[in-house]
Amino acid sequence: MKEERVFSFAGMTSRIIIGEAAPSAGEIIRDAGGNVSGILAICDEHTLPLAKKITSERPASLCVLPPGEEAKTWESVERILKTARDSGLGRDSLFMGIGGGVVTDLAGFAASVYMRGTGLCFVSTTLLGMVDAAVGGKTGFDLFGAKNLTGTFYPASLVYMPVETLRTLPEREWKSGMAELVKTAVIAGAELFQILKSDRLDPDDGETLAACIARAVAVKGGIVEADPLELGTARALLNLGHTFGHALESSAGLGRISHGEAVAWGMVRACELGVKLGVTPPGRALDIRRLLESYDFELEAPHPFMGEDDCFIKAIEGDKKKKAGLPSFIVPGTEGARIVPAARINGTGGWTCVIKNIIDGAAL
Amino acid sequence: MKEERVFSFAGMTSRIIIGEAAPSAGEIIRDAGGNVSGILAICDEHTLPLAKKITSERPASLCVLPPGEEAKTWESVERILKTARDSGLGRDSLFMGIGGGVVTDLAGFAASVYMRGTGLCFVSTTLLGMVDAAVGGKTGFDLFGAKNLTGTFYPASLVYMPVETLRTLPEREWKSGMAELVKTAVIAGAELFQILKSDRLDPDDGETLAACIARAVAVKGGIVEADPLELGTARALLNLGHTFGHALESSAGLGRISHGEAVAWGMVRACELGVKLGVTPPGRALDIRRLLESYDFELEAPHPFMGEDDCFIKAIEGDKKKKAGLPSFIVPGTEGARIVPAARINGTGGWTCVIKNIIDGAAL
Repeated sequence: MKEERVFSFAGMTSRIIIGEAAPSAGEIIRDAGGNVSGILAICDEHTLPLAKKITSERPASLCVLPPGEEAKTWESVERILKTARDSGLGRDSLFMGIGGGVVTDLAGFAASVYMRGTGLCFVSTTLLGMVDAAVGGKTGFDLFGAKNLTGTFYPASLVYMPVETLRTLPEREWKSGMAELVKTAVIAGAELFQILKSDRLDPDDGETLAACIARAVAVKGGIVEADPLELGTARALLNLGHTFGHALESSAGLGRISHGEAVAWGMVRACELGVKLGVTPPGRALDIRRLLESYDFELEAPHPFMGEDDCFIKAIEGDKKKKAGLPSFIVPGTEGARIVPAARINGTGGWTCVIKNIIDGAAL
Repeated sequence: MKEERVFSFAGMTSRIIIGEAAPSAGEIIRDAGGNVSGILAICDEHTLPLAKKITSERPASLCVLPPGEEAKTWESVERILKTARDSGLGRDSLFMGIGGGVVTDLAGFAASVYMRGTGLCFVSTTLLGMVDAAVGGKTGFDLFGAKNLTGTFYPASLVYMPVETLRTLPEREWKSGMAELVKTAVIAGAELFQILKSDRLDPDDGETLAACIARAVAVKGGIVEADPLELGTARALLNLGHTFGHALESSAGLGRISHGEAVAWGMVRACELGVKLGVTPPGRALDIRRLLESYDFELEAPHPFMGEDDCFIKAIEGDKKKKAGLPSFIVPGTEGARIVPAARINGTGGWTCVIKNIIDGAAL
């Protein structure tokens, strides 16, 4: 079993390889065309054994980061850059991000700025990484309590997705990926939505998993190809559930709620907003909620970790995607999803009152 | 007097406007097409009055950095990002770097990573900035004692070069720019070389100055257009004098020698290497040295601030431009300049011995 997709993001080619097992450093260098003067493997404590296995037959520098979203800091980036510098790596070296979204976002950022850009590949080891973080070129880290406030667009030229690594994925990580997979299905994958609805996805069923991942990669890759630098609106659709979700993560304190939990909760809020605005058919909203429920997400509003309403609204106002000072929301349509700028949300007290009602569970 | 040049660097357009006076924020926003949701003016203590003047009629946030190369740190980048964040700026805001190369390199880097990229313009206020730093999209800061170890390619869409700001430029800054101007003339500007030779350039002669700057901008812009991401060899020619110069700066301790002093000294070393290799005609080497002498540069080897030979060689080995583990040197040819990889420098004891002899003044 091996599926490949090749995308071109803003002139940079990104080859995605979905397979059973992780590649060796030798295979990676061969796939990269051979011109690699040095390797820097970047992993966290969980993926350290895999990183060692991948690089066992090649000389490679190693940078081990602390696990989790809390590690998405400048200090982690600096640690990667220092390892590269101390190893004497040049611009023609290859950074390998081996792990989930946090590791690949950090490795990608470090690769994009070390000597103004080195080679970059990912071995993605989480469902979230495979269906979302490792595809499309967004890199970054958190700053001043804001998620991914700092980042670059810098796609990995090679992205490996070995599904066997998902068998040992912790429940929380698995759910994080499921939320993004459902999101992708809502945006553009009627067929994927049906597969997810008909059967609860299982980490041991590598074939079905690989097929779902390949579909999600095709959807995300296609959207990013059309709008690599997020200048237009197409790519914004990928933020379904994220405006609410990021604000939940921020107001709860970064790291308290997993990204996927936040996005699942945010998608249900987006559905409620969509129903209220007459954009989302109530039946579709229910369908989406039921699918998320079947994967045991916490979907009630208000969320137990949410914090103050005003803090939540402030987090929404600080969102990167705002235009002309106002945030936008993505809501499901009859099919796919639509963008709703805050200015178009009318109600007593303006858009903030409408949103407050929704996050407080007073909307429906 | 107003000269304009438009370049396209890796798909991004950069418009260079050489004029007498600095523009107002209103003019800048008009030139930028009007779609700007907020302004962040970034300057240092020297250019603060100019930054205040430029933004006097528009609401703008202001970030004032300490002056000098010592400020080229992550802490300065973080200060810019914090000001942007605290001012609630979004991706559609405009960062204005107002100052010399340090300010524009930092402002450019911050703009390239804040929310993965905001609008960016420069008001360049030094000769070095105008003939080099502000053109071509290289941003960056120093890390672990290495110059520009961290950076991005992110050209400003608008670059203003008001020559009246050069009248109050300190002597040291003026010489820094002159070194890059001479370098540009050596690489590709026989005509520019003649102008510089025939008459000592004067900060009060705005017309001649603007003409020389326009020529230098045309040379640098043309080279960068052909190789925006420095993947090929054309852009490497711009590093004439820089392999030696950067190593001198590093081994002396960053900030002790101005960039221009280091580059002028490095160019003479490059000439000596070129003569030794039979690539640079001795007459041309002498011509270049005499021109630099006429601008009072310290050109003797060894340089008084140089430090240990081994430290110098180590700094060369850490250079960003190395390929397959070895550095390259740029040396003047019969006309223009040529790239010489270290591997092609043969002599008793290998390339490091040849270079040691040159930096110790034992070469000629």
